[in-house]
Formats: sequence, C-alpha cells, structure tokens
Amino acid sequence: MESIGILGGTGPAGRGVAVRLACAGYNVVLGSRDSQRASETASGITVRGNGKITGGTNDDAASCDIVIVATPSDSAVETAASLKSKLDGKIVVSMVNALTRGNKELIPVYPPLGSMAAEIAAVLTDSKIVGAFHHLPAAQMEDLDSGIDADVVIFGDDEEARKRINDIVNEMPGLFAIIAGSMALASAVEAFTAVCISINIRHRAHSYVKMAGLTH
Amino acid sequence: MESIGILGGTGPAGRGVAVRLACAGYNVVLGSRDSQRASETASGITVRGNGKITGGTNDDAASCDIVIVATPSDSAVETAASLKSKLDGKIVVSMVNALTRGNKELIPVYPPLGSMAAEIAAVLTDSKIVGAFHHLPAAQMEDLDSGIDADVVIFGDDEEARKRINDIVNEMPGLFAIIAGSMALASAVEAFTAVCISINIRHRAHSYVKMAGLTH
Repeated sequence: MESIGILGGTGPAGRGVAVRLACAGYNVVLGSRDSQRASETASGITVRGNGKITGGTNDDAASCDIVIVATPSDSAVETAASLKSKLDGKIVVSMVNALTRGNKELIPVYPPLGSMAAEIAAVLTDSKIVGAFHHLPAAQMEDLDSGIDADVVIFGDDEEARKRINDIVNEMPGLFAIIAGSMALASAVEAFTAVCISINIRHRAHSYVKMAGLTH
Repeated sequence: MESIGILGGTGPAGRGVAVRLACAGYNVVLGSRDSQRASETASGITVRGNGKITGGTNDDAASCDIVIVATPSDSAVETAASLKSKLDGKIVVSMVNALTRGNKELIPVYPPLGSMAAEIAAVLTDSKIVGAFHHLPAAQMEDLDSGIDADVVIFGDDEEARKRINDIVNEMPGLFAIIAGSMALASAVEAFTAVCISINIRHRAHSYVKMAGLTH
C-alpha cells in the first residue's frame, strides 16, 4: 500500500482528504512549511481505520509514494517546483483551484496555462499529473459522520496514473470516482469549483457534485 | 404567461427544453433559418400539458416575450446580433456551449470574452442575459418518460431576470433550478458541459449534474 503525502496538507482541504485516506488504510504525511504545526494538526485528527496521519515538512510529504498538492493556488507551483527531484516519476495529484472573491460568490481565475494542473505539470515534467478532489466541501470531508456521498471527477493524461487514483478514491468512504478524461478538461473541472462554492454561499448549503444517472 | 422563443430551436437541445416548457403550459416557438423545417419539427413533437409548440423563423422566435439561444456556438452571436432590435429589453437565455472534439472526449473552447453568454451579452447590450440549461442530456430532456431529475445551474447579472428563469425552470418537469451567481461564473458553467459529456462518452451513460446536499 502506497504512502501518500499532502503538500500544504494542514489546511481544511488537505485534512479532509487525509482523514478519508487513513480510513482506507493509507499512511498519510501532512506536509507544511511549518512541520511543528503539521505535527500538531496531524495529532489533532481523529483517525478511523488502519492508516496513520503524521505531520512533517513538505519535503517529508514529497518523499511519499504518491503526492497530493493541496496548497493555496498562489504557492502551488513554487512548492511543487522546489520538490521536483523528489516528485520525479511519481503520481502527483493536483486538487488546487485558483479562485478569487466576488460579490457573494467565488470567481474562477484562469492561470496562463488554463489550469493549476497544467501549471504544475509544466514544472513537474517527469511526474504523472492527475487532477482530483476539487469539488468537495472541506468540512464535510473531514467530518466522517457528515454522510457525504460525493463524486470525485478525475482527469489526467497518464491512463495508469488516473486509474490508480480512481481506485484509491473508491476505497475512501463517501466518495465515488469518475474519470472524465484528459488534462484538456482541467480548466473546466477546476473552474466549476467556483460554481459549487458560490452555490453553497448563496444557498447556505454544503452541496457537492453528484453525476446522477451514472451506473455506480 | 409569457411566450418563449428558441433560436436554433430545432436541434436536440432546443427540442428538449421546448417539450418541458410546453408541459409547464408555455407556448413555445422553435425558430430556425428554415421555417418549413421548424414547422415540421414542431408538429413531430408530442406535447403533454397545455403549452403549444410551433415552428417559425428565428425572427418569429425572437418576437416572443422570452428568448432562448440554442443555436450552435459558431452561429450564436451572429444570430443574436441580427435580431437585436427584437430582443431589446427582453430576457435572453443562453444555453450555448462552445466545445470541440478531442480523443474520446469533448474539450471546452473559451471564446475571447470567456464564455458564450458574455459574447452574446456583448452584442445584445439592451437585453437581460441569463445562462441556463447547459448540462442537460438532450435525448433524456426530450423524452418525458426518461425519469430525468436534473439540476439547472443559472447565472446572470440581472437579479430579476435570473429569478424569473429560476421560477420557469422549477415549473418544468424533471428540472430543479439553482441560481449560482453572476455572469462571472459563465465560463465555468459552460465549460463544465464538456466534462459532463466526456463522462457520458467514456462511461456510456446519460448522466447529469445534481448538487447533492442542497435542500430542495
């Protein structure tokens, strides 16, 4: 079973994914610029299942078998680039969204290459980039009793890598994986996060995407 | 009760919306460059409910109280612009998506202004532009026995206009309206159509977006 590192893993998005990975039995390293804070965050998470969650530096997280990028969008590329040698040859999952605040809504920001996944792929030329976990409400992810039953839309150009992430997602409680296609869909998947969050702001909800009518 | 015209209404997307508008009691005019074909298409649709569906020119459709743009993306702006005087002051609903074919997937195309809704708004400066109906599988929309129960994500800058469309959508069987926010979300809503269709191609499904966890 692979170890999984999460860059910027101490934020709500990273913690939510970590707790459900641990449920599925994976050992997870929450990486942070502040490894002390990461250790404290990790020990504060109640784990169910056989996986362990520990804290460390982003360098520690990048040493895992599979690495998830969960940093804020403005530091994602720099963080990934600084760890390139550790990430070469590995599956790197981007769950990064570039969003900006509007009037009672969040608005998608399109980086020069169209998506954060493409920006990360451009610096991690020897990693297999997969996109996943974009549309999930963080608090409901972290709360294992939230009853969430959400779809995870997955994209990437490496068929084997996205299939591996697909299978891991399906082992995580409350999540169902759907491979959408290639990196050409990255901007569309990422930008839709702004729509999901805007709906939740406007309707005071914690909704998430479910592709109804798909045979599960 | 307003009359509703659909520009480019003889295609699958337009027909699917028309049949459910008629169910809700609205009289619908399917507009086409070929009014003869539009009349034939209209008379071939089995209507349930009190609304009538008739065919005509795009000019006839643009004379209705509310007008939906359902043309292919490459003719949407030109068609809308040519009917500007008829559309002034009215609610104009864009359901247009700009997509291109990839390898076993559809890829979003971003027009210069970011979205088709913005392109249409740029020529219809005196209309109230609302986006809706993007993610719906056309065949399931037209088949009233398909059992579809889909969310319709709505956006627009005119609060009253998007509320009116919200209410009309909620009168249509099988659809539930969700206002997401302003025109700043247009590109994200439109582009996600590529993800929906790509998922359906890959998984041989007819799935559609449902925002689970939203109190209906």
